[in-house]
Amino acid sequence: MASPAASGEAEAPVLPALLLFRRRLDAAFHAALRRRYHLLDFFASGEPLPAFLAGAAASPDPPRAAVVVGGGAVRVDAAFLDAIPSLGFVFSTGAGVDHIDLHECARRGVAVANSGTVYSTDVADHAVGMLIDVLRRVSAAERFVRSGLWPVQGDYPLGNKLGGKRVGIIGLGNIGSLIAKRLQAFGCVIYYNSRRPRDSVPYKYFLNVHDLASESDVLVVACALNKDTRHIVNKDVLEALGKDGIIINIGRGANVDEMELVRALKEGRIAGAGLDVFENEPKVPAEFFSMDNVVMTHHVAVFTSESRSDLRDTTIGNLEAFFSGKPLLTPVLPW
Amino acid sequence: MASPAASGEAEAPVLPALLLFRRRLDAAFHAALRRRYHLLDFFASGEPLPAFLAGAAASPDPPRAAVVVGGGAVRVDAAFLDAIPSLGFVFSTGAGVDHIDLHECARRGVAVANSGTVYSTDVADHAVGMLIDVLRRVSAAERFVRSGLWPVQGDYPLGNKLGGKRVGIIGLGNIGSLIAKRLQAFGCVIYYNSRRPRDSVPYKYFLNVHDLASESDVLVVACALNKDTRHIVNKDVLEALGKDGIIINIGRGANVDEMELVRALKEGRIAGAGLDVFENEPKVPAEFFSMDNVVMTHHVAVFTSESRSDLRDTTIGNLEAFFSGKPLLTPVLPW
Repeated sequence: MASPAASGEAEAPVLPALLLFRRRLDAAFHAALRRRYHLLDFFASGEPLPAFLAGAAASPDPPRAAVVVGGGAVRVDAAFLDAIPSLGFVFSTGAGVDHIDLHECARRGVAVANSGTVYSTDVADHAVGMLIDVLRRVSAAERFVRSGLWPVQGDYPLGNKLGGKRVGIIGLGNIGSLIAKRLQAFGCVIYYNSRRPRDSVPYKYFLNVHDLASESDVLVVACALNKDTRHIVNKDVLEALGKDGIIINIGRGANVDEMELVRALKEGRIAGAGLDVFENEPKVPAEFFSMDNVVMTHHVAVFTSESRSDLRDTTIGNLEAFFSGKPLLTPVLPW
Repeated sequence: MASPAASGEAEAPVLPALLLFRRRLDAAFHAALRRRYHLLDFFASGEPLPAFLAGAAASPDPPRAAVVVGGGAVRVDAAFLDAIPSLGFVFSTGAGVDHIDLHECARRGVAVANSGTVYSTDVADHAVGMLIDVLRRVSAAERFVRSGLWPVQGDYPLGNKLGGKRVGIIGLGNIGSLIAKRLQAFGCVIYYNSRRPRDSVPYKYFLNVHDLASESDVLVVACALNKDTRHIVNKDVLEALGKDGIIINIGRGANVDEMELVRALKEGRIAGAGLDVFENEPKVPAEFFSMDNVVMTHHVAVFTSESRSDLRDTTIGNLEAFFSGKPLLTPVLPW
């Protein structure tokens, strides 16, 4: 066999095909994937999804793995999986996998992994920052100062102290636990609701969200989105939280009944909200724009340059594990 | 002696006179003072300060105590003390006493007390909130969302992770220590500078602010303002902090050389700032208004309804201690 040196040109390695469904990938991440895989990039293809998948399935080396954007625009459902039967592994660049039909994946033996805990501390930090912001009116004060009102208008509504607040966390997973740990340092009292009580934590457990809301000053939504947690914060829960209560949502928009939240805020039935997620992103209810007691960010709780590079490492680590038949690093459905 | 009942009218108790220099006092606080003291209210009088003090000094019951606003509009200096020789006690409603000439007070045997620690946790919380806000671009994201740009403009600069950041605290007093405790829960590394190292803390001590800045990602100004700490953050310190560095100031505006800070931010020589205080409040340098990496609040780090009622209790507790010859609760200069 002729060596590359002998033939006078570098031998092109045969890279495994990889389906890519992520619109914005930083240059370093893109290069790291390209070095290892033959990328079939959906968003770059400009094709409709069925045509794109059909083309990939018909190629000489049909892709065995896909990287899909977290919380995303593309749903990995039965139709998707039917279209590309070679698929054995789906990696989601988010922690949530509500856009992946796990049942259908499990049925077909398709492994699923997610971003694991790469975002957890950033999301927890963001949640705490938004809570301080709502309680202490930081963003409202920012607008006040930037509009030049300080020298003109003396009075300004007081904020509220964080210490001593009873914070009810919905979902005491990785992120919820990190939020709890941080808020303890501020002197908050931590309560929680989750599918089952956790033995290892000292926080008071509530069997349902309604009771949690009744006893809490602040509700933090930190659970995954699934059929049981869709609108887990509904009209009744907002009522139970009460007029001095504050909602922080860093889970998914649909964990909260957004129209009821708008109504409760408009009518002063709750005191404020810090929202990183919305039901119909990137649409935000226009009513929020005139509310000084609402702090909104555009689903950026995970967005730091540090988490971005951690995500790159986690993505490639999982892909390499899959292609070499080793255990996935951050499995959701390990097969 | 005729009893009030016998004379048919309530005997008006003779209340001790109290000088009051605070423009805005909530109704409950005002009522609590009025029940106990005959208030000589400078801002309500409309008089120039010398006339007001001369009138008070000439009254049959010249005031022995004064309540002055923290960080304030009225300076208790030699001229002030000369004008009202009956004065034996000054209470500042702020923690800082840079508006009170302690040397002149000490020389005349005038006791001084301040608000003690009533604001400490609120200020520490606010400092942490502003740091998260600057790192994670919360207020900038708020503007982005409120201006309707989310659906239109996809890309947005990434924030930075709080965990692992080296935070240099200038002044490890009550507030600085509470900031350190909170930031430890986020995984920050704490460094500090203060007049002398503190035995009881595990944080690395730096003998001067320049070295602290060189080793830190974030500088938090949490010291009192005095001649040694005026412009303690100057051009050299900003240079040492460097282009990825962030300044948080919840001390006094004049702790930072504001014009140098403006320049450093404009020229990208530091990365961002969170400022609750300014050199010439309520004036804020207009250059800040167009900077997305600056978070500004209008000296509200102490402003919560909880700290307000704690302040009322502390003020009255100190006044009652002074008038009954007991030790002050929160003395600065106890005589």
